[in-house]
Amino acid sequence: MKPSIVKGTRDFGPVEMAKRNYILDTIRQVYQLYGFQQIETPAMETLATLMGKYGEEGDKLLFKILNSGDCLSKVTDEELMQRNALALAAKMCEKGLRYDLTVPFARYVVNHREELLLPFKRYQVQPVWRADRPQKGRYREFVQFDGDIVGSTSLLNEVELIQILDDVFSRLRVRVQIKINNRKILSGIAEIIGAANKITDITVAIDKLDKIGIDQVNEELARCGLTPQQIGQLQPIITLSGTNSQKLQVLEQVLASSDTGLKGIEELRFILDATPATLNNEVQLDLTLARGLNYYTGAIFEVKALDTPMGSISGGGRYDNLTGIFGMPDLSGVGVSFGVDRIYDVLDALHLCPENALATTRVLFVNFGQREAAFCLPLAAQLRSRGISTEIYPDAAKTKKQMAYANARQIPYVVLCGADELEQGKLTLKDMNTGQQQLLSPDQLIDRIDN
Amino acid sequence: MKPSIVKGTRDFGPVEMAKRNYILDTIRQVYQLYGFQQIETPAMETLATLMGKYGEEGDKLLFKILNSGDCLSKVTDEELMQRNALALAAKMCEKGLRYDLTVPFARYVVNHREELLLPFKRYQVQPVWRADRPQKGRYREFVQFDGDIVGSTSLLNEVELIQILDDVFSRLRVRVQIKINNRKILSGIAEIIGAANKITDITVAIDKLDKIGIDQVNEELARCGLTPQQIGQLQPIITLSGTNSQKLQVLEQVLASSDTGLKGIEELRFILDATPATLNNEVQLDLTLARGLNYYTGAIFEVKALDTPMGSISGGGRYDNLTGIFGMPDLSGVGVSFGVDRIYDVLDALHLCPENALATTRVLFVNFGQREAAFCLPLAAQLRSRGISTEIYPDAAKTKKQMAYANARQIPYVVLCGADELEQGKLTLKDMNTGQQQLLSPDQLIDRIDN
Repeated sequence: MKPSIVKGTRDFGPVEMAKRNYILDTIRQVYQLYGFQQIETPAMETLATLMGKYGEEGDKLLFKILNSGDCLSKVTDEELMQRNALALAAKMCEKGLRYDLTVPFARYVVNHREELLLPFKRYQVQPVWRADRPQKGRYREFVQFDGDIVGSTSLLNEVELIQILDDVFSRLRVRVQIKINNRKILSGIAEIIGAANKITDITVAIDKLDKIGIDQVNEELARCGLTPQQIGQLQPIITLSGTNSQKLQVLEQVLASSDTGLKGIEELRFILDATPATLNNEVQLDLTLARGLNYYTGAIFEVKALDTPMGSISGGGRYDNLTGIFGMPDLSGVGVSFGVDRIYDVLDALHLCPENALATTRVLFVNFGQREAAFCLPLAAQLRSRGISTEIYPDAAKTKKQMAYANARQIPYVVLCGADELEQGKLTLKDMNTGQQQLLSPDQLIDRIDN
Repeated sequence: MKPSIVKGTRDFGPVEMAKRNYILDTIRQVYQLYGFQQIETPAMETLATLMGKYGEEGDKLLFKILNSGDCLSKVTDEELMQRNALALAAKMCEKGLRYDLTVPFARYVVNHREELLLPFKRYQVQPVWRADRPQKGRYREFVQFDGDIVGSTSLLNEVELIQILDDVFSRLRVRVQIKINNRKILSGIAEIIGAANKITDITVAIDKLDKIGIDQVNEELARCGLTPQQIGQLQPIITLSGTNSQKLQVLEQVLASSDTGLKGIEELRFILDATPATLNNEVQLDLTLARGLNYYTGAIFEVKALDTPMGSISGGGRYDNLTGIFGMPDLSGVGVSFGVDRIYDVLDALHLCPENALATTRVLFVNFGQREAAFCLPLAAQLRSRGISTEIYPDAAKTKKQMAYANARQIPYVVLCGADELEQGKLTLKDMNTGQQQLLSPDQLIDRIDN
């Protein structure tokens, strides 16, 4: 009878951790190269902080923590007998587990506004929890890796985030397409055809162009309630193609009467012009990009892997009112979030995790008994002092068992020091890749391994 | 009206994170040098896994998570009206937050027993949660950093853990005393005086020797119910002093009739003899060391900082039945845990956190406007490609404000490129430590910074 693990959560063993750390370290390095600083916030936030920030559906997906002590102290008998789970939860729970890193970051910025130096570039990598129905690729605990710049409306921040996205995936050797859009352009489109509330329907329909063709897209738009005239106006947008600047030119004509739309075009043009031509990955204007539409106010980003089918592996955008929900208005921010689990799956599918990221112990001393081990101990310490990861097998087990351990752990060097070697004050070094063995003095051994 | 943070939890800002990361990275490096591999387990465990593992008091300190959906579905009206908070919690909650890393590790070992290669040396660094009353230095969320070796009874593992403790605190430049004891010796003492249930009282009383003197220690032992004869037998133990081997010699005589006690002495002697003489910190036998007495079965460790008053900053020991609670008997383990928060406080008190651990951005490009920034962008990219953390101030704010930002962030190099410089295709590099300024070509600038 094995103990069970909570549904939708995972253990990470040594190999998974090594791969995950490779991803996290790479992202961390890049953020640091751009001057981002790390913060951490608690796993628990008050429900007052969390509720109402993720929509009605989101509220249901919050993990709530039962008040310690007498959780019923604030509940009357009448309330108990009404058996309203949601209402009772509100009285029995004051805390919940964080659902994302954005709301805790907003809370952090407001709580620390006096000491905070703006612009503030922060990164944060922590688990989040959602009471979602677990399924393949969807977990109840997963890590988010966010980077945001708050307190600056400069579009150079958007450029920097594009550079960061490009830099991270270049280092990970994942070929990607970086998609960009602008909320203001979408608003402009809705404005000129006079259908402000249809913008999601429109982007969803346009997104199907490649699959179903222009006629069926138009039919779908009609089903959504657009008039033939509106659909007519949308044609140049639906069939938009060519380079980014060609697309922007067409949009400029179509959106000529919308100030908001033109502002979006101007922003996008600045960002695309200022983005260095030396990027490894293509940045492509994609009007169907509408993630978190209600949340973003300017640029919208999304990254897709080119060489394996996978949803978005990174995304983000500009939001003009991060901290408004906590009574601190007019603080603009822009950020990206890396989907660590999906990036992991991409790396696994494409076998892109480098060997050395998985490397652990480099040298194993086989244990032939107490006296032999005592001879090896200071040598192991010397190797470690040179930064070489070294183990002494703790038990004087059969050599075969110890060699099997070295093999399974993929340890490249094994040192054998039995009675014969001990007598000579020497050791046998076995290269596990070539099978070659050499009898060496302690100094020779150390030099041989540390080169 | 600021949003509030959950009582007993903390935000960590950039400087705190840099110091914490310095500690965590140091410990991680050392574990890796000794061949330990990282695992992670979920924040949530089933209450079946957690309950009953930390004593009655511990059960009360578990944070319980309300079942999502209808949390009352398993509760009858009668049960509701009984208003028994504990009984109701058991029906409304299936999950709790992990209380330490040991029980989740035991669960991990049992769940993964088939794929696990023994001996298994794992480290794990994750937050744990306890519904304790918050007070100075005691938090409801804090990080534990554990390392354990399971599946080997060899005492070389104890030696290795002592080396690890010494190595970590040497790297952190914290002078410590590593205290060691053995549960079997304590059992032996209880055995020879025939007071098995008094061992905690005895160690507590002996621990006060320095403060209150031998007479009062003996009085306290009498108050605990020890007979004059028993107290007499304890005298050589209470006044035990000298080197470790002198202490072991005395103990050998006192415990001559206890097989368990002699076994403990033998174990301790082996460990002390096998520990390399090259350690930077002293290992001292301390009979008053009795932490987690019911848990440990052999060696017991504890580390104290020498240069600042602070409780134990690290500790651990041998346990012979880690996984027995989950139906997998006879797996011995030994481990240590680093108290990250206390180590942080020690480093802070002694100003031991090195400058370079706090270093962030090395170069800031002042922003004089769009054209100037465009000239700087590829240069910044080149610096970053050489691993130099670089920022471009995103807004063309007043130079004074940008310089203040550089000062506050302690950025050592500032690059100024205004209209004059732009015309010459050059840049002014300002060394913020010396105040010196130089006009340089882009290549000169890069060479100057990257040396």
